[in-house]
Amino acid sequence: MARPRIESVGMTRFGKRDVSFLDLIAESFEDLCSRADFQGADAIFFGSMNPEAFCSDGNQAVAVSDRLGLTGLPSIRVETASSTGAAVIQEGARAIISGQYESVLCIAAEKMTHLETRKTTKILAEVIAPSERMYGATMPALAALITRRYMHEYGMTREALAKVAVKSHANGVLNPYAHFQKNIDEGKVLGSKVVSDPLTIYDCAPISDGACCAVLSSTRGPVRIIGAGQSTDTLAVADRQTLTSFSATRRAAARAFDAAGISPSDIDVAEVHDAFTSFEIIGTEDLGFFEPGQGWRAVECGATELNGELPVNPSGGLKARGHPVGASGLAQAIEIFLQLSGDADGRQIDARHGLAQSLGGLANNNFVTIMEAVD
Amino acid sequence: MARPRIESVGMTRFGKRDVSFLDLIAESFEDLCSRADFQGADAIFFGSMNPEAFCSDGNQAVAVSDRLGLTGLPSIRVETASSTGAAVIQEGARAIISGQYESVLCIAAEKMTHLETRKTTKILAEVIAPSERMYGATMPALAALITRRYMHEYGMTREALAKVAVKSHANGVLNPYAHFQKNIDEGKVLGSKVVSDPLTIYDCAPISDGACCAVLSSTRGPVRIIGAGQSTDTLAVADRQTLTSFSATRRAAARAFDAAGISPSDIDVAEVHDAFTSFEIIGTEDLGFFEPGQGWRAVECGATELNGELPVNPSGGLKARGHPVGASGLAQAIEIFLQLSGDADGRQIDARHGLAQSLGGLANNNFVTIMEAVD
Repeated sequence: MARPRIESVGMTRFGKRDVSFLDLIAESFEDLCSRADFQGADAIFFGSMNPEAFCSDGNQAVAVSDRLGLTGLPSIRVETASSTGAAVIQEGARAIISGQYESVLCIAAEKMTHLETRKTTKILAEVIAPSERMYGATMPALAALITRRYMHEYGMTREALAKVAVKSHANGVLNPYAHFQKNIDEGKVLGSKVVSDPLTIYDCAPISDGACCAVLSSTRGPVRIIGAGQSTDTLAVADRQTLTSFSATRRAAARAFDAAGISPSDIDVAEVHDAFTSFEIIGTEDLGFFEPGQGWRAVECGATELNGELPVNPSGGLKARGHPVGASGLAQAIEIFLQLSGDADGRQIDARHGLAQSLGGLANNNFVTIMEAVD
Repeated sequence: MARPRIESVGMTRFGKRDVSFLDLIAESFEDLCSRADFQGADAIFFGSMNPEAFCSDGNQAVAVSDRLGLTGLPSIRVETASSTGAAVIQEGARAIISGQYESVLCIAAEKMTHLETRKTTKILAEVIAPSERMYGATMPALAALITRRYMHEYGMTREALAKVAVKSHANGVLNPYAHFQKNIDEGKVLGSKVVSDPLTIYDCAPISDGACCAVLSSTRGPVRIIGAGQSTDTLAVADRQTLTSFSATRRAAARAFDAAGISPSDIDVAEVHDAFTSFEIIGTEDLGFFEPGQGWRAVECGATELNGELPVNPSGGLKARGHPVGASGLAQAIEIFLQLSGDADGRQIDARHGLAQSLGGLANNNFVTIMEAVD
């Protein structure tokens, strides 16, 4: 099977940004053009979770092609809740594999911080099953439930969980695109406001604005996509067999590794969807990096730090890079691209194979994308 | 290039339906299963224009896989405003062509009628460029502007325009899935309420609920997709060179006919996006069926009627079948499938090649899909 390459990437700094949705996208495209020569594309694959609710604008696939001066190109929006950015790159890759396009421009963005938090929280909660939402379930509440169960089953300490956030912030300091570029310590995490017990505000990814983009090509670029997998789970958390593992990640990973022809031990660097600190730990287990119940111990012993045996979220992750929901999945792939192409500056890891994993909704539309440095 | 086939299809009756969004989708899937044996699929491609605004629910790609008992399958939403249903089938077809999937389930749906018309109109207007929306432009207002210009340039009479609606309603009578199944005459069209001069309420497709689905396969099915094209135009109508032709349709058609290796004169039946009666006429010109300015004369002489030389919208079109916005593009392809496979009952046309054309927004994200009966 043909293996699409990533040719070039661009990003805005994530964070509280006082510019419009389309201006953010234009800024990320300018960043791409400043890093590499943009040689055109045959189509645009665009992702955003909910610009209609966040920005009161529809038809954004066209707004984007128009704004970038690319009118005429096919432009399509894809959406899978908070994994939308990962869906964008996998759809773009599939279009290259189909042979219909030789290069595609992938774009993912979200503008969220201009709304009141209460309004944003309501929009974000619309991804939850109505049967659970009707009782007031929010994303942090469901994540807290899962975290408690994980602590109960595997004996994870609250302190180990805090170390995930400390690590993410330390990495964010080294990433000029990150929302947060400030170190924190365990005490800060443990002592901050409880969002939903046991999760404090430092266990939760922030609400951010941001955009990013990447050109995929059939022939050009220093990184190739060698495996992609996607799978869904039940909409309601209550309908699942277990709380401490996400079956959609496991199935997506199996497909991606099968296509790639490598195994989890071959991965040198990973970006794992850490909308909540506990989700990073569960993710590293579902991806096969650690046995069930061992992910938190890996954090505790520093295995996932930048200089550990398997660096996880060198970008700072959703926690510190920020989480403009529809953009995060593509931002993860961009970090892997930067790592594999040797452009990750102060957070550079010596890596040949990288992996990005993204969760949609409450982990029910998950993607795993495996990349390799071209020799 | 591999040419994906359409194996089976299903639809709800379109109209004012007092059931939920997901129940509509389930009903269309049941219709598919009652018509043909559902042998499973490797993935779901789902389209809806704005279920978040219409139904206050997000994450609907997962809600759909869950509701249909297909949890685990990759499920992705695509969206291109009112051409979403066409985007769904083209993305599904591309996935088959890529070789990654052998069969995919395409689903498209919208639930609109439960909201107040004022609220629905506001949601629909969000596809218009902000620079035009801010002055109160609505879809019918912009369509009226285009219609007046077409009348001015080509001398089209108001009576000819009315004949489009009369024809659509006559065809709708023969379609058990149509929103309207009642004949009207020219006097009814001309004498009814003016929405935006010169368009009366019978020139505008109705607000409808509805869902439809189709299984695409790499090897099975009586109809194959032989050409697909998509192109965009400027978001703002004011930025275009002409009002009386939609360049995105012309480019999409050129790509589709090029891939298909046939020409407009080979088409035996077409479904053309008639959100407004004048758009059907412009569409038949942009698709190359008639010369610019001749489309209205073709209507006048009956060439696009069911027994004419090129039947257009045998289903009743958006006008009479109804227009649940995100579903219409797929419903068009389903009508062509039924015509080419000999299952169109009382409206059956003797046809080997069929074409479906869909407009996104104010004709700025347009799709053309060409199908052929398998020998």
